[in-house]
Amino acid sequence: MSTRRTYLDWNATAPLRPEARVAILAALDEHGNPSSVHAEGRKARAITERARYQIAALAGAEPHNVIFTSGATEAANQALVPRWSGGTACALYAGALEHPCVLAGGRFQTDSVITVAATKHGVIDIDRLKHHLGRHDLALGRPLVALMLANNETGVVQPVAEAAALVHDVGGLLICDAVQAAGRIPVDLRALGADAILLSAHKLGGPKGVGALVLADEAVAPAPLMSGGGQERRQRAGTENVAGIAGFGAAAEAALAELARMPAVARLRDRLERGLAAIAATAPWQRPDGGRLPLDVLSQAPRLPNTTLATLPGATAETLVIQLDLAGIAVSAGAACSSGKLTRSHVLNAMGIEPEIAAGTIRVSLGATNTDDDIDRFLAAWSEIAARHGARKAA
Amino acid sequence: MSTRRTYLDWNATAPLRPEARVAILAALDEHGNPSSVHAEGRKARAITERARYQIAALAGAEPHNVIFTSGATEAANQALVPRWSGGTACALYAGALEHPCVLAGGRFQTDSVITVAATKHGVIDIDRLKHHLGRHDLALGRPLVALMLANNETGVVQPVAEAAALVHDVGGLLICDAVQAAGRIPVDLRALGADAILLSAHKLGGPKGVGALVLADEAVAPAPLMSGGGQERRQRAGTENVAGIAGFGAAAEAALAELARMPAVARLRDRLERGLAAIAATAPWQRPDGGRLPLDVLSQAPRLPNTTLATLPGATAETLVIQLDLAGIAVSAGAACSSGKLTRSHVLNAMGIEPEIAAGTIRVSLGATNTDDDIDRFLAAWSEIAARHGARKAA
Repeated sequence: MSTRRTYLDWNATAPLRPEARVAILAALDEHGNPSSVHAEGRKARAITERARYQIAALAGAEPHNVIFTSGATEAANQALVPRWSGGTACALYAGALEHPCVLAGGRFQTDSVITVAATKHGVIDIDRLKHHLGRHDLALGRPLVALMLANNETGVVQPVAEAAALVHDVGGLLICDAVQAAGRIPVDLRALGADAILLSAHKLGGPKGVGALVLADEAVAPAPLMSGGGQERRQRAGTENVAGIAGFGAAAEAALAELARMPAVARLRDRLERGLAAIAATAPWQRPDGGRLPLDVLSQAPRLPNTTLATLPGATAETLVIQLDLAGIAVSAGAACSSGKLTRSHVLNAMGIEPEIAAGTIRVSLGATNTDDDIDRFLAAWSEIAARHGARKAA
Repeated sequence: MSTRRTYLDWNATAPLRPEARVAILAALDEHGNPSSVHAEGRKARAITERARYQIAALAGAEPHNVIFTSGATEAANQALVPRWSGGTACALYAGALEHPCVLAGGRFQTDSVITVAATKHGVIDIDRLKHHLGRHDLALGRPLVALMLANNETGVVQPVAEAAALVHDVGGLLICDAVQAAGRIPVDLRALGADAILLSAHKLGGPKGVGALVLADEAVAPAPLMSGGGQERRQRAGTENVAGIAGFGAAAEAALAELARMPAVARLRDRLERGLAAIAATAPWQRPDGGRLPLDVLSQAPRLPNTTLATLPGATAETLVIQLDLAGIAVSAGAACSSGKLTRSHVLNAMGIEPEIAAGTIRVSLGATNTDDDIDRFLAAWSEIAARHGARKAA
């Protein structure tokens, strides 16, 4: 068992950025409550307001439209609600590839949540969305559509601007989960045409337990999820996570500045994929007749620079994750929030990937501090695991 | 303007304990997601599980019944819901002195929230509670009663165990906001007879943005507020605030150990109150005919060791807070979460304190690191402000 670790699970959570650590430490030393009027309170308030500007800059939004939450899950639960100022929504149309915190439907009744199918290319089926919107009864309320900017398991970038135009044509609202996209590709609320986006600090190098709901227009806002004090312009009660928010702001600023490094991350990812293909070529059992490997799909899709999938048909992802962990490499069998449950990926399923192939697929997600050496280490471990797997299949 | 600061606003938020700071820093360096199965994930998970034991020890609960939240406001919004496993609640009876996050009623419809009056002694009126419970129609569902353990503005300790017995006699549930009590007096879920308690990290020396809902019985639980991933035994979706939770646990452990120092805090508070009385004795204008000062009430009530109220009839609390702030002293005009709004105290109002007296009352709340010197500085500033105020009144 190796003591050196190679972390390739950035879509589960990214290591804390040094800038975020510094901001958190400074904020921890300011002990006021941001709602207090005295000097201590005002200092704490200044910290959250600075971060609000940093998040707004990342998202192309106005600072006063940034609502800090305890994470993207809370932001999703706040946004996915029938009651919006400016018009009630009567149904939620959620892409089949959305994160579980979106698919759960927030505060919509279960029978008001409609899933919009995906194509085999890992993107939402725009024709199906048109179909649903065409059938939507506007007399009952507006449609609320949830479409992520980049998928957490595949990294495939979704046609959000195109969907937003369709949704707005019928007077609906579009919520965009930008959690995995932020810090990896540009996120611009206005260019996307989204009415609100969801962000998470810890996916872009901030601390866990902080996120934001960012609105395009303060007059178009969901009913608060939490009531009590008047924090966050009365849109989110509860004393603010000042240190966490400070770390989120600093991480967002650093992530925005670091977008220029993403082509280098993509080159590492491409090297990794060439290595996976070379290993697969030596093991003809890998590709069942007619079965598409997820990687075949991804390589043709618009996608994040950092995410890929590796498959050993006939293996189980959970075992692969444990074998790689023992070799000192951290990857994921799917979304981290559900990986403890070891359930099958709803994303690969919605893409029509064969069950045997989906079950043997792991997610490898990179970040800006990964190196060629990390890729070498992964490929060496994968090669060994694949050889053992092949030997067992042959026996 | 003084540069040295005297912090006497611990009920708004307490300075971070050194033990919490150490725990937060250590947790920031562990970058796994607690739901990930690899070594990084398991380390993060170990941090949250250690904190769960520390919170359970503080509250006299089982660790698996601790649900971490983003604060007491979230915990209140989760607990105050009609849908509980083990029986639906059809009405919420909230004490008139409760915190705004409880009075807001969580997920109850406004017309299902009944306020239970308080006595002029600053405690809930148990006879009124009996009256409400006697009229409650059990055929529609069980009653849910919310009663805080200690009030945030006065520190008066409420008869929670007595109320819990009454509530349970009719098959109801009792939720206890123990935010201000925890770390200042013992909090024992079983001795209180509460079905759930609410805790906040930052009131006992942990970081802001973390709290817990602690259940007495895992079979009697409220419907989750946030849906998505399977975190917190499926009772609270969203990636955990690992560093914040670590700080909360460490603070809870330190606070529990430090309960023995509370008599010393009470002695400082008593000195402060004797000083306030001496200043008032030199200013006969202070006490209108028949008007009770809040302090007259508090001195006869069971209460926290750290909280008191200072009054200058005819002054406005907001101005007093600013004058003291300029003198280097941080106090509050009421609950911090509403102090920005400068609204009148609903607590003093419910106690029947005359408006003119309530409007001139500030809260002074102490902590274990305050000293005699802090009390001297407060009294010197207060004496000067009172003299100026008296001169203006005389003019």
